[in-house]
Amino acid sequence: MRIDPALFQENERLAPSRDTREFRSVGRLECESGGVLEDVVVAYETWGTLSPNADNAVVICHALSGDSHAIGWWDRVVGPGKAIDTERWFVIGTNALGGCQGTTGPSSGGSDGRPFASRFPVVTVGDMVEVQQRLVAALGIEQLQAVAGGSMGGMMALEWTLRNPGRVRKAWITASCAAHNALQIGFNETARQAVMRDPKWAGGDYDPADPPNAGLAVARMVGHLSYLSEVSFDRKFGRNIQEGRDQFQVESYLNYQGDKFTHRFDANSLIVLSRAIDRYERTSLVGSASEYLFTSFTSDTLYPSHQSRHLDRLARDAGCPSTWREIDLPFGHDAFLLDGDIQGAWARAFLEGTDDEA
Amino acid sequence: MRIDPALFQENERLAPSRDTREFRSVGRLECESGGVLEDVVVAYETWGTLSPNADNAVVICHALSGDSHAIGWWDRVVGPGKAIDTERWFVIGTNALGGCQGTTGPSSGGSDGRPFASRFPVVTVGDMVEVQQRLVAALGIEQLQAVAGGSMGGMMALEWTLRNPGRVRKAWITASCAAHNALQIGFNETARQAVMRDPKWAGGDYDPADPPNAGLAVARMVGHLSYLSEVSFDRKFGRNIQEGRDQFQVESYLNYQGDKFTHRFDANSLIVLSRAIDRYERTSLVGSASEYLFTSFTSDTLYPSHQSRHLDRLARDAGCPSTWREIDLPFGHDAFLLDGDIQGAWARAFLEGTDDEA
Repeated sequence: MRIDPALFQENERLAPSRDTREFRSVGRLECESGGVLEDVVVAYETWGTLSPNADNAVVICHALSGDSHAIGWWDRVVGPGKAIDTERWFVIGTNALGGCQGTTGPSSGGSDGRPFASRFPVVTVGDMVEVQQRLVAALGIEQLQAVAGGSMGGMMALEWTLRNPGRVRKAWITASCAAHNALQIGFNETARQAVMRDPKWAGGDYDPADPPNAGLAVARMVGHLSYLSEVSFDRKFGRNIQEGRDQFQVESYLNYQGDKFTHRFDANSLIVLSRAIDRYERTSLVGSASEYLFTSFTSDTLYPSHQSRHLDRLARDAGCPSTWREIDLPFGHDAFLLDGDIQGAWARAFLEGTDDEA
Repeated sequence: MRIDPALFQENERLAPSRDTREFRSVGRLECESGGVLEDVVVAYETWGTLSPNADNAVVICHALSGDSHAIGWWDRVVGPGKAIDTERWFVIGTNALGGCQGTTGPSSGGSDGRPFASRFPVVTVGDMVEVQQRLVAALGIEQLQAVAGGSMGGMMALEWTLRNPGRVRKAWITASCAAHNALQIGFNETARQAVMRDPKWAGGDYDPADPPNAGLAVARMVGHLSYLSEVSFDRKFGRNIQEGRDQFQVESYLNYQGDKFTHRFDANSLIVLSRAIDRYERTSLVGSASEYLFTSFTSDTLYPSHQSRHLDRLARDAGCPSTWREIDLPFGHDAFLLDGDIQGAWARAFLEGTDDEA
């Protein structure tokens, strides 16, 4: 198979356009942990047109560092004429509860105007989905054509199906799992400790004007070690030297990614969201009435392919129609963001109901 | 194959017994970088008896965080009756140049009594070997039966053979490579940044009584993510909760390893040694007159097996007798420390010259 060499160079994610976001209050939330948020606001974006019967909505769930702008971070998959076709579906992207791109999270102001910071409650993947459900209901939508997501977003999509039997027709879950293994937790804990051991973290109550950026940058570097594969690192950088500097290109890249992250992400959100996904665990899908498509990538060492195979088995054991497609691409975990062609073709056929013929 | 379950639980390394170390000055060293160290001291230990012809010496080279106490950190491989049999061979372990266990390194005092710290020169794997060579010569040894090492130690062993053609009979190199790939450099750079972005690092000139332990601990956590495999992390910890704490066992383990490391290791040594191995690169073994055994492990994602296969090809291309043995064990990179049985059997036969019959 010929692989587009440009994919190996891909590394920018598009930030949400602040002009296209909308905000909606979804009220008081009692979190599963017992913590309470008095007034949760969701930042969201939509593309396409809701059908008269309100039966063509697709909710997209983002990964840990994502946001509502699905047409940006998943631009190979979402858009006019793409796998999740915004000319056919009414597509909803939201920022997850606990995030930092407009939805209530630890950097949001509490009732006293100060950021929640260390006061932000423990939230779960289920809490994130609860917030999305309220938004969807507020938009007048009772039934979803589909939920879709990768990585953390895949857990959210899975949880949607379990909490809404009969109301989510299909779920496409890519590069995700039913529960993190010890290595996934280990990567997240190392990233968390990079933040929490930064003296500026201050137990979570840092000065918003002087956040723990040193730790957050290292945390992001740790993340990137797990997002690419050995092969994609090598194809992208090899042992090339950064021009004019006594530094390997891969060193420059990781530092750049780390520093850039501090301009768009909140350190406490990293902790809150990564803990939520570490603690997530589903051992059965009994009760679900959805149809599933699971996709995974041979080179993904963070969310290894066998985790998707396991999800497929759980779905079949629960009596749900389910398909698992393993895709041989060398991009590591990032493949779920980079691959529009292969997973896109499977996803399109699945969403449009033409996969039986395919 | 049945695997000893205890191996999955192994995690302690034995520190060198300070009583058994010896020290020797090997004089002024002009480093390959141009930097000069006026008086290099080597910490070393020996086991066994040098033969009257001084022809039974085996030099052991340690990995990044190792030391002279080979009989400790490599206790499954080195000792009486073991693969590197101290009843047969005169075994020499040294602490590497740039380290922090007795040999001159950045935490050693310069002529003004203050630690070298940021004044410590850039050193190479070749410089490390030069220091070992001087020690071996000072011990009255002109020819080695073998050099052996894993990971960084494998690079040192390789370099021994190239710098001493005809004087190193055999080299056993395990879980190592001829040059780091981008992912290996990436792990090291992330660890370095954890240290260097700790404000206590102070450009390298930190207070020895108040070193950048927060960053060093995170650096070690990053290292551990690369030392184990997905399977060994899962067998060791799974999703088990640390008793009495709201924490996964793997989180507790990584934090414990990180904190423990700060009690025995110097932050600047981590930077100096990891840079030396990142910059090491051999593209040919032409000129070597040694016989090679390369071993590698299927589950090692840090020093993947194909790097040892590549070394074997380079050795054959250079006209050297060479064997590569890939070992199917699930312990990741740490397999080279944990496996005494399989690699040990190959190494013993190789060192004793019985491998042709095996």
